[in-house]
Amino acid sequence: MLTERGFISRLRQSAAGAGPALLRGIGDDCAVFAPAADRSLLVTTDTLVEGVHFDCRWHPPELLGRKAASVNLSDIAAMGGEPKYALLSLALPGDTDEGWLELFMGGLLGALGEQKTNLIGGDTVRSDRLTFSVTLIGSAAPDRILYRTGARPGDLVWASGYLGEAAAGLDLCRLADARKENWPELVKAHLDPRPRVALGLFLAASGIVHAMMDLSDGLATDLAHLCVESSCGAVVSADLLPLSPALRAVASHLGRSPVEYALTGGEDYELLFTTAPGVRGSLPGLVRAATGLDIHCLGEIVAGSGVRLLQDGEKREIAYHGYDHFGR
Amino acid sequence: MLTERGFISRLRQSAAGAGPALLRGIGDDCAVFAPAADRSLLVTTDTLVEGVHFDCRWHPPELLGRKAASVNLSDIAAMGGEPKYALLSLALPGDTDEGWLELFMGGLLGALGEQKTNLIGGDTVRSDRLTFSVTLIGSAAPDRILYRTGARPGDLVWASGYLGEAAAGLDLCRLADARKENWPELVKAHLDPRPRVALGLFLAASGIVHAMMDLSDGLATDLAHLCVESSCGAVVSADLLPLSPALRAVASHLGRSPVEYALTGGEDYELLFTTAPGVRGSLPGLVRAATGLDIHCLGEIVAGSGVRLLQDGEKREIAYHGYDHFGR
Repeated sequence: MLTERGFISRLRQSAAGAGPALLRGIGDDCAVFAPAADRSLLVTTDTLVEGVHFDCRWHPPELLGRKAASVNLSDIAAMGGEPKYALLSLALPGDTDEGWLELFMGGLLGALGEQKTNLIGGDTVRSDRLTFSVTLIGSAAPDRILYRTGARPGDLVWASGYLGEAAAGLDLCRLADARKENWPELVKAHLDPRPRVALGLFLAASGIVHAMMDLSDGLATDLAHLCVESSCGAVVSADLLPLSPALRAVASHLGRSPVEYALTGGEDYELLFTTAPGVRGSLPGLVRAATGLDIHCLGEIVAGSGVRLLQDGEKREIAYHGYDHFGR
Repeated sequence: MLTERGFISRLRQSAAGAGPALLRGIGDDCAVFAPAADRSLLVTTDTLVEGVHFDCRWHPPELLGRKAASVNLSDIAAMGGEPKYALLSLALPGDTDEGWLELFMGGLLGALGEQKTNLIGGDTVRSDRLTFSVTLIGSAAPDRILYRTGARPGDLVWASGYLGEAAAGLDLCRLADARKENWPELVKAHLDPRPRVALGLFLAASGIVHAMMDLSDGLATDLAHLCVESSCGAVVSADLLPLSPALRAVASHLGRSPVEYALTGGEDYELLFTTAPGVRGSLPGLVRAATGLDIHCLGEIVAGSGVRLLQDGEKREIAYHGYDHFGR
């Protein structure tokens, strides 16, 4: 049987090899590290619950481990920060397979390692409901941190990547759709989202971004959060939403609207941000040159409140049409 | 219905009012704080699962909220650190009563407030299994941090308070014992343990402690951990175990051994530490004067490995006879 001591001892070996700032990793009452001078610290925690946030029937353990790390790395990216340290709270059913756990941990450590982030602590408990909480600690120069509060009327609203892909991929998995294999990029967007850490750092260093957050609950809800925090409103155009050919094909296949996927589909983990209008022509090329990623302008920040969608010559209110964690 | 937005908005108000080092609390992708110069940071996370770590049938919500904070505050205390910031991941069943949640949060914020610790972030999700993960961040002068690794042969082994009380209190609750009310201090030790933050800070500042940890899994297991980390062994005497009159009475009532409660009972959240032998006579009085708490010498650190109990003139191995989180 897998014992807690055995598990922690193995974890300690695989997580070894941190930098000089880490004074103590796994194995004491707390992890201990020396923060760099003149840096502020960022901290975030996100929990994934089996049957609510993931389903082991279609989520391979390695990709689930990656995702447990990635959704938290994305929060650090959303502030323009550099991820540094992670803690994992793992609640495991008694019949969890050791091989499954090894693949899960391999995925988690792999995704952390890609961002030079060390697993420095955590907790393992029994539960009949598989649950992971990851806490991520990052750092940033205080004057470069990008909050949700800085948007102002006249700003352009931007998002990285395509929208709605993860939600469409989830639907393909949920429906065990026979044509799922035709759209591997959508299934991957759900199973293995990529945190936009390099993009967040680039945008923070650029000095031209006014407000930023990551897209976890869908554009409609997340942009509404950003507007509330910045005391402003926003208008986005349906024509400007970045909809991939694959998303359009799946939406048509499932009888759904691709625009609704883009507005209300959660878990894209792309970055949503605002800038002054002058960079509309130049920014996408600069971002592509620096990070290899595409960004798209979706609309603009306006005075007042609310989020409106401009579609077929009409405007409609779309704020908070996304995912509420208490609502399901 | 309780919405996530409504809950976070209320939480944000009740958690407001932090010091100047907190640049951003609840409400952005990450919390942001400026670490103090010349301090190291301590970080720990602990998860409590309904039916495994607590039972709502006898655990009042306010005390459960306190305990979710206290078990993590205890880990900061165990390093000699000062707790600063907390994050809460809350997984709630759909039928959670709002009044219950308010009492729980009141208890959590109360226990944090007593230690001048701010709730700065977290996550709320649905789950059919009530689960809390708290992450605690503390700080300490790097040269005062007390690790598990510093014990050396000849050291005295000390513990604060009484041992075994929380486990006996849990048994009284589990058995719904009719005489439970006769021993409120034991029931309280289980429901509302007090983290020894002031004692940890005093011992760290004293400069005389070689190794320290908190007692969460029972003396036998925890002392074995300390010995492994310090590459040494320990001998403790049954005669020296601090057994309260209440514990002796309950053990007798339940037909259990008070010594076994002290060795294998988890969740005492007292501090276990070692010092050079010269302070045997003086230290208890100094600690009592500074903190109002009692400490007891239980035995000594020896060369080699393992933990042995000296009882009735015989020695027996007792290492790892406590709680394994994967074993139940």
